[in-house]
Amino acid sequence: MTRRLSLFGATGSVGQSTLDLVRRDGEAWQVEVLTANCDVAELAKLAREFRPAVAVVADESCHDALKDALAGTGVETAAGAAALVEAAQRPTDLVLAAIVGIAGLAPTMAALEAGYNVALANKEALVSSGELMTAAARKSGATILPIDSEHNAIFQCLAGGKIDQVRRIILTASGGPFRTWSAEDMARVTPAQAVAHPNWSMGAKISVDSATMMNKGLELIEAHHLFPVGLDRIEILVHPQSVIHSLVEYVDCSTLAQLGSPDMRIPISSALAWPQRMVTPCAPLDLARIARLDFEAPDEARFPATALCRAAIADGGARPAQLNAANEVAVAAFLAGRISFPAIVDTVRRVIDTMSPEAPASLQDIFSVDAASRAAAQTFVDRYEHA
Amino acid sequence: MTRRLSLFGATGSVGQSTLDLVRRDGEAWQVEVLTANCDVAELAKLAREFRPAVAVVADESCHDALKDALAGTGVETAAGAAALVEAAQRPTDLVLAAIVGIAGLAPTMAALEAGYNVALANKEALVSSGELMTAAARKSGATILPIDSEHNAIFQCLAGGKIDQVRRIILTASGGPFRTWSAEDMARVTPAQAVAHPNWSMGAKISVDSATMMNKGLELIEAHHLFPVGLDRIEILVHPQSVIHSLVEYVDCSTLAQLGSPDMRIPISSALAWPQRMVTPCAPLDLARIARLDFEAPDEARFPATALCRAAIADGGARPAQLNAANEVAVAAFLAGRISFPAIVDTVRRVIDTMSPEAPASLQDIFSVDAASRAAAQTFVDRYEHA
Repeated sequence: MTRRLSLFGATGSVGQSTLDLVRRDGEAWQVEVLTANCDVAELAKLAREFRPAVAVVADESCHDALKDALAGTGVETAAGAAALVEAAQRPTDLVLAAIVGIAGLAPTMAALEAGYNVALANKEALVSSGELMTAAARKSGATILPIDSEHNAIFQCLAGGKIDQVRRIILTASGGPFRTWSAEDMARVTPAQAVAHPNWSMGAKISVDSATMMNKGLELIEAHHLFPVGLDRIEILVHPQSVIHSLVEYVDCSTLAQLGSPDMRIPISSALAWPQRMVTPCAPLDLARIARLDFEAPDEARFPATALCRAAIADGGARPAQLNAANEVAVAAFLAGRISFPAIVDTVRRVIDTMSPEAPASLQDIFSVDAASRAAAQTFVDRYEHA
Repeated sequence: MTRRLSLFGATGSVGQSTLDLVRRDGEAWQVEVLTANCDVAELAKLAREFRPAVAVVADESCHDALKDALAGTGVETAAGAAALVEAAQRPTDLVLAAIVGIAGLAPTMAALEAGYNVALANKEALVSSGELMTAAARKSGATILPIDSEHNAIFQCLAGGKIDQVRRIILTASGGPFRTWSAEDMARVTPAQAVAHPNWSMGAKISVDSATMMNKGLELIEAHHLFPVGLDRIEILVHPQSVIHSLVEYVDCSTLAQLGSPDMRIPISSALAWPQRMVTPCAPLDLARIARLDFEAPDEARFPATALCRAAIADGGARPAQLNAANEVAVAAFLAGRISFPAIVDTVRRVIDTMSPEAPASLQDIFSVDAASRAAAQTFVDRYEHA
């Protein structure tokens, strides 16, 4: 039976991996929606191949180019934030939410409110709006299928179990490229060093988040929303090889783990085929060749980001949105050579220490917190630069 | 709601671990049956505590002592092979089959034929009669819940999945105490060296089986019956720390694993509570403290037992029963100092090479194969001794 897929963020890394799987299993899928920010050439190429009902660019200034590129194909085009939300409301069987950053929040919420299952790769949306998103899913009966490899692992380990029988959720972390570095050495880290992730090939922003371990902190926030076992039951375990993607320990002390090669097509396929599984072209794990897996406790003295995130969850309300926005500004400033590596997490901490916004009741509140936090972070970044 | 438990082999290691869990969760259970071979003192003590409807000794010569010990308690007593089968047919919610060796076969089959779910710790029964047992379970609708830590792990990893979506089952093996020894050094192994298992505290027979890796071969046969994915999809992986108890790889290349401390109460509890889970007093896994897990491919040149078992599955019919019987005789001869360590597997191979019994159609056929194979193995053992 053909299933309908609406893919938000088709031209990025997760979008391309998704379409690689759809391409191999073409008869199973009918692509309803493809979107991009403004990569018209790539979006038009994909639209010609997959023939969605509609292709959308988020940036309205790119609409004319898209119209030209798809003229005569019969593929409808649209542009702008409202068009993304409309596209998310079109009848579908699965929405794949792979727009990066807060821009993906509104269409993801619209899909959940419409009751569509959402395969979620948009970390920032869940971090900043976890309570709103999970409430919308509960209300409409939609299922959130996490694509982040750690949360997908936890989701799989929970498949045969019940959340009230969970004793601990253990999020694994590679520890990033500076896992063994001293605090002094980390003060001199360059952007080029920070974007070289040991196990996964990823974008610059998430690579830096991995290096500060802010990425693991953000995942802690995600896990808290997706798997409501209580914050004190979610732990972080450093596992440099990133072969075990996360673990779930049950009340009987049985621990289930999901393992796999570092290929995003594995968790994506798991969300696409859920509750079944589909054949992927991924490399099977060869543990005899890998030979060794290591584990160690995280060091929150050298990597304070995770403690900051844990505190943000405990505070609740707008804290995670604030933290996420401040981190985006700080990482961009670091990548631009404007602030030092340790100043990334310091900037986030300063924003949190100086602002206590009220709990958001709507997406509009989230956007306000996001904007205010970015502005505050920018101020701190400027001060560092002129210090 | 109280559930009824019939426990076969109450005084052994698995039986005692089971009763430890039942004791902690007393209101949940009503013990219907307790059995022992001839340990009357222990069986009577347990019967006084758990008040089963009936207590059975397998050895009829121990019946009078049991009657005396339970006089006035209201606990019915019985003895002998037929009484064990009758006890297995009594209405119950779960039969725990923990009798060691071929003696456990008849009551286990009786329970499966009656449609009762069986928590199975009796390896030899499944190895020698896998086809008969799984056919009986299919026919009556009974579920076999494996208690062996490896098979229990696989069972758990399959809980949220489907067997036709499995790509590989990976049985982990500690590799035993001689994992790194040369063939020359293994020729001089003493019984005391062979029974010192690195991770689990076990009986002498299974410790020797672990040292020859015949234990893993027998588990391969068990896995083949319990999880019909095809012999070429079941692999063995040496993992000296025995923390990962086994793994299931799905067609999408997601691999699920079950991990735990080396405490048999974990898999036992999983079978007792299935499909729920129960709180156990077991130690949670501390991977940061364990620090490191190792893996390597098995070396079938130094440890030929697993290849022998694989061939026995491929041959089918009475081969596994024959292999199991010959191995029991050979291990006993080694423990008695009558044959060398390498002669254990050699004896099994010789029995297989010289006898090709017909496929068993009944338990009686299995018993005949078992007896003939023991006699043949004994002959080879005598020859070694006089060589």
